[in-house]
Amino acid sequence: MKLYSSIGPNPRVILTLLKEGNIDIPIQEVDLLGGENRREPYTSINPGGQLPALELDSGLVIAEVLAVGQYLDATHGAGLFGEGEQLAETLMWYQRVQLEIIEPMANSFRYGPGLETFKDRMHCIPEAAPGLAEKAKGGLKWLDGLIAGREWIIPDRYSFVDLYAYCLIDFFAKFGQPLDGAPNVEALLARVGQRPAAQATA
Amino acid sequence: MKLYSSIGPNPRVILTLLKEGNIDIPIQEVDLLGGENRREPYTSINPGGQLPALELDSGLVIAEVLAVGQYLDATHGAGLFGEGEQLAETLMWYQRVQLEIIEPMANSFRYGPGLETFKDRMHCIPEAAPGLAEKAKGGLKWLDGLIAGREWIIPDRYSFVDLYAYCLIDFFAKFGQPLDGAPNVEALLARVGQRPAAQATA
Repeated sequence: MKLYSSIGPNPRVILTLLKEGNIDIPIQEVDLLGGENRREPYTSINPGGQLPALELDSGLVIAEVLAVGQYLDATHGAGLFGEGEQLAETLMWYQRVQLEIIEPMANSFRYGPGLETFKDRMHCIPEAAPGLAEKAKGGLKWLDGLIAGREWIIPDRYSFVDLYAYCLIDFFAKFGQPLDGAPNVEALLARVGQRPAAQATA
Repeated sequence: MKLYSSIGPNPRVILTLLKEGNIDIPIQEVDLLGGENRREPYTSINPGGQLPALELDSGLVIAEVLAVGQYLDATHGAGLFGEGEQLAETLMWYQRVQLEIIEPMANSFRYGPGLETFKDRMHCIPEAAPGLAEKAKGGLKWLDGLIAGREWIIPDRYSFVDLYAYCLIDFFAKFGQPLDGAPNVEALLARVGQRPAAQATA
């Protein structure tokens, strides 16, 4: 098994998961800023051109942070997804956080402050950037209300969803997407940030 | 176990999965057009306000089509997700299809032809509608190249991803998002549409 990794928030999700689960696997760095991920041979490894990707011993390559995370978690018992009802609950909250907050936030960044970097890498919609930032803000407020009084996003257990939200929001917050109006989310993410695994990948 | 369902493409994904797996569970209809899903008591059942949702015997409610589908599949052996490497592969392709095609297509619909229905239900970004339709078109072309020569999206097995892509694209195609330029996808979706399960929910 080999992990293709790089700088950036999605690779950090998996690097942090590895620390949480004390998982030790070979890691090959890909030069994201130099565009190595948008050229062969990497585009044959992951035709999405994104990082991270996990090459299994069978030769199958798993991309997308959700899939890489779930597989590593299940095979190494990191306990961040769970099984049965817990797995379903993790997938549900992942989707909520991804669709209501992270995707609009990430696309607002790619179509706005990050446009120079991303315009030749994907279809960008610059006119959508302000609206997407507003949408992400609405999503954060919605999540803030839902998690009031909770320690973690899924009640009573630290999960992949907390780790994912932390790594992505922590990254985009540096580019003008603050957490004002979402104090519960802010406090929750600060708790994730204090974990040794998050500090090891900061 | 009880499924909350309604008209619409996402509920259809789960209704079709039930048919594929010969799964028989109680179904409660929610009046989507009447907005019953945006009012109590439904918003306490699923604070996302969307359909479908699955209430488990434990009292836990699972929302989001990915999570509902994976749970029903795993507990009833429908075989549309698989386990281990296959589950990771299914999650990966689901994310690719969702993020590159379905989400931009769905949002282009909600912010464009569907704006009157959706403007009071979610944060809409009308100025993004044309760009999102273009993005979805690019995603369809990308997928079209990747699946050339394949029977299904994941090589050699019919999966949840085919079923999901079929139900969503079939719905949005009726609202001005045609499949021109993606003949492999068009042929693949036609194969899904010929399956008895898809015909039973048409």
